[in-house]
Amino acid sequence: MAKILTGIAASPGIAIAKAFRFGHAAPTPERKTIADSETEAEAARFREAVRLAQGEIEEIRAQTERRLGAQKAEIFEAHLMLLEDPDLVDVTLDKIAEEKINAEYALYEVTNAVVDMLQEMEDELLRERAADVKDVSGRVMGHLIGQPYASLSGLSEESVVIAEDLTPSDTAQLDLEYALGFATAVGSRTSHSAIMARSLELPAIVGIGAEAASIPTGTVVILDAAEGKLIVDPSEEELREYRGKKAAYEERRAKLKQLSGQPSVSADGVRLELAANIGSVEDLAKVLENGADGVGLFRTEFLYMGRSSFPSEEEQYRIYKHVLEKMNGKRVVIRTLDIGGDKELPYLELPKESNPFLGLRALRLCLDRQDLFRTQLRALLRASTAGKLNVMFPMIAVLSELREAKRIMEEEREKLLREGTPVSDSIEVGMMIEIPAAALNADSFAKEVDFFSIGTNDLIQYTMAADRMNEAVAYLYQPYHPSILRLIGMVIRAANRAGKWTGMCGEMAGDPTAIPLLLGMGLNEFSMSAGSVLPARELVGQLSKREWAAFAEEALAMGSQEEVKQFVEDKRRFD
Amino acid sequence: MAKILTGIAASPGIAIAKAFRFGHAAPTPERKTIADSETEAEAARFREAVRLAQGEIEEIRAQTERRLGAQKAEIFEAHLMLLEDPDLVDVTLDKIAEEKINAEYALYEVTNAVVDMLQEMEDELLRERAADVKDVSGRVMGHLIGQPYASLSGLSEESVVIAEDLTPSDTAQLDLEYALGFATAVGSRTSHSAIMARSLELPAIVGIGAEAASIPTGTVVILDAAEGKLIVDPSEEELREYRGKKAAYEERRAKLKQLSGQPSVSADGVRLELAANIGSVEDLAKVLENGADGVGLFRTEFLYMGRSSFPSEEEQYRIYKHVLEKMNGKRVVIRTLDIGGDKELPYLELPKESNPFLGLRALRLCLDRQDLFRTQLRALLRASTAGKLNVMFPMIAVLSELREAKRIMEEEREKLLREGTPVSDSIEVGMMIEIPAAALNADSFAKEVDFFSIGTNDLIQYTMAADRMNEAVAYLYQPYHPSILRLIGMVIRAANRAGKWTGMCGEMAGDPTAIPLLLGMGLNEFSMSAGSVLPARELVGQLSKREWAAFAEEALAMGSQEEVKQFVEDKRRFD
Repeated sequence: MAKILTGIAASPGIAIAKAFRFGHAAPTPERKTIADSETEAEAARFREAVRLAQGEIEEIRAQTERRLGAQKAEIFEAHLMLLEDPDLVDVTLDKIAEEKINAEYALYEVTNAVVDMLQEMEDELLRERAADVKDVSGRVMGHLIGQPYASLSGLSEESVVIAEDLTPSDTAQLDLEYALGFATAVGSRTSHSAIMARSLELPAIVGIGAEAASIPTGTVVILDAAEGKLIVDPSEEELREYRGKKAAYEERRAKLKQLSGQPSVSADGVRLELAANIGSVEDLAKVLENGADGVGLFRTEFLYMGRSSFPSEEEQYRIYKHVLEKMNGKRVVIRTLDIGGDKELPYLELPKESNPFLGLRALRLCLDRQDLFRTQLRALLRASTAGKLNVMFPMIAVLSELREAKRIMEEEREKLLREGTPVSDSIEVGMMIEIPAAALNADSFAKEVDFFSIGTNDLIQYTMAADRMNEAVAYLYQPYHPSILRLIGMVIRAANRAGKWTGMCGEMAGDPTAIPLLLGMGLNEFSMSAGSVLPARELVGQLSKREWAAFAEEALAMGSQEEVKQFVEDKRRFD
Repeated sequence: MAKILTGIAASPGIAIAKAFRFGHAAPTPERKTIADSETEAEAARFREAVRLAQGEIEEIRAQTERRLGAQKAEIFEAHLMLLEDPDLVDVTLDKIAEEKINAEYALYEVTNAVVDMLQEMEDELLRERAADVKDVSGRVMGHLIGQPYASLSGLSEESVVIAEDLTPSDTAQLDLEYALGFATAVGSRTSHSAIMARSLELPAIVGIGAEAASIPTGTVVILDAAEGKLIVDPSEEELREYRGKKAAYEERRAKLKQLSGQPSVSADGVRLELAANIGSVEDLAKVLENGADGVGLFRTEFLYMGRSSFPSEEEQYRIYKHVLEKMNGKRVVIRTLDIGGDKELPYLELPKESNPFLGLRALRLCLDRQDLFRTQLRALLRASTAGKLNVMFPMIAVLSELREAKRIMEEEREKLLREGTPVSDSIEVGMMIEIPAAALNADSFAKEVDFFSIGTNDLIQYTMAADRMNEAVAYLYQPYHPSILRLIGMVIRAANRAGKWTGMCGEMAGDPTAIPLLLGMGLNEFSMSAGSVLPARELVGQLSKREWAAFAEEALAMGSQEEVKQFVEDKRRFD
């Protein structure tokens, strides 16, 4: 009989295929004492396992570079460097020689020590490094015990991958021809594997629990990533039902794809911009494929992360230019460096803060470290002639910050012009609205910017005084709360009065419950993950802006998020 | 010639007297090796020094209890316990015996190790503990080197105390008959010594720098704590000038004292409540002396701090009852436990948070740990018959939190009534407005509370997304920023419409620049440090509410704090 495991829907879709159980879990090795005369041979055996692992990683690196680009392949450079790191390899060799023990146990102990040390670090990137160490060490261990790591690139038939978790390297290797979806035992909607699944448009559910390990490879499964269900060994009837659902889902998807070349227009003829958020050049393919009206948020901080020094002006220039060219005249909103808070750079020494979300981050840091800021601004200004560039400053609370940022940008523009470098004269300069003070003072800001873009994740966090990464206060992340809607309303009204446009680039912009209200309130641009653009275009086509303007007014007068949600649902029922 | 040192005005007033230089700084001891046969004698010498220090601390403890009450004396219990702590005493004795070194050097090394360890702790209370260890160890060292610690209780003539810094124990020992004021080399307006000076109404300046050490005891000094100046060895002319200033200051103070029994009324006859903030029973004396109209904020978390277990219901009941009785029918607003954020309890294990100011603190924690909350509510309800009790919940963002808090309170009330314990039926129940979401939704809240009290310190911090303890973003602490004033305006309007009253218990409530605007906006109650009540009463007596209502409207339409400040100054010039 079929067994149903439930998890968190991480990326929508339905897949029906045989399960492919995937994992690198090795048993805890036994400690074996070896004879004095054997230590040399044991060391050689370990060196050989390292060599084999190196060859494997090098191959994955090359393959990833071919398939996904150089940036995604960088992680494997890091893995290769780990195998040259004395902390791991030399210490293990020493242990074999000194303690006269088997290589497996020596590697096991050394790995645990390094991982423990890394996991205690405050720095998130260092903690993530622990996963890399485990990954690399596990690969060596696989060779030692004669069970080399399985790879997801070698699937030979259509499969649903079942795993404890998927690492960055696992997902990078997924062969999309055969991997139709995946389900993992652990994870949340924001874990690495979930984000990756959405960007690959691969059906996925996460957090199905330890029972994942009990599904044998070859068992037929239905992955229902709309409902967050994994049906193991389904009945004929279930298979029939889900084949129908899958067909319906794919039909809808095809219908949505037809909207790809269409404009974004409400039922009563109001033209909107439905744009996409990107973090790197690689994300552009999906943006174009989904026919987004532009890039509403380019998070440039990802150019600065996962490396050991600042990207140069030239490096940034080329990336910005490439994005602008690819978008071919469509609007591209590039946000200046938003580092600090939960995003740290290992090569940028910042004082430890008690409350980093309330600290020296983003533009605050850029105004303090103007060298960084000026380099980025020069790269942006130089790239501006390649397309329709909008520059956006994050984390502004007070007018003086905006003025200072604009002054520095103007200085760099003048310098470039004096040097004879062309700069577009139609760059729009705008700011994020993500701090309550800025929303409350939007009237004053509207006179000095070309546009606003509301960053809802932070705006909600500050308005509710609740860390959006802290589970204990997760109940306060309430995007439809009237207080949030009122702030958004103030911002849009202020922009309208000044003849400026307002966008939104938080998660809320692609949320089907929020979209009707935001349309009604007069939001002009919605920027979301590329995969949400077409459903959003379909949705706004069904909505009358005029009607929702009246509904939004009612919603804003309510007292709680629950009331607002219920109200939107009720109204939508009659659309 | 006179030398002028400048510092931060920490507590107003003028003092003219001889300097009394006070400090415990001991030179770094020399490391001396001792003979095997001497170690026993050296250990005995150390034990004797410890014994002498114990006697001294015991004496200070008893004296403090007599002068300032049992609560203020508790710190010395902790000091005595440190001298019984093996980490300090036994480890030093071991060091003498094993390393065969002199007691001074052994104590020096052990103290440094303990202090270093404590100073690296995340926990603020443990870091403060480092100061206690230094204090106690220094006292022992004083006996070892034959220079016992000086005490501030032994002043025999009027003096201005000059010190590197003053510890809690130093200030507890200040003899107010002879200590006319103090100046310290280090410190800020919020350091312990500054806060203590304000609560003692003792003129003080802090942060005058290292030159403090160059002032010999006996030199005549003028402490001008209005201007933050210390004039060392003043000329006859300066002395004359300052004697005049001092007389004027004292005259003004005497005039203010006459306002002590008067009502708080604006120039156009509007009655206000000018109340005081307290943290303990000991603060009540100043509240009564300054004729405050009530207690606008009793920060109960201080009852929970500096101890090793939760205060019992009975213990709390007695304290609340005492405060209500002392206030003799005047309003007493008691805030329920506001722990978390920057305030930790060593005996309450809380998960470490990345952004504690945005975490599980105050009411959020109380709703999670209802045992704590219910104990406090029962104590409050039982005490309610002793006076005019107002109960206030902190850190509310959404309606469901308020409703849950009120439900729990109602449950406890019913339990008490069933048990036959009398509970007042005129308790007012209100909430702090310190989260932007609550201010923006004040309309809904106003229907379900009896009053609001605006907590400006947190409200500013969240509205600006700037940690109020983080120097790097201190420029964003802008109480007169139009965004802040607009939120305050929304709250007062919402309360007015619902027929409820609005108070304020942040620092802003006692600020002469803010008071005219707040009066104009319709704030009903201002709660401040006791020492600010009479100047505030004098000020509001000069202000027309009607006139400032119009001015406030103008100020709210401005774009920056600078404009608002300038505007208030300009208008005040004509009052």
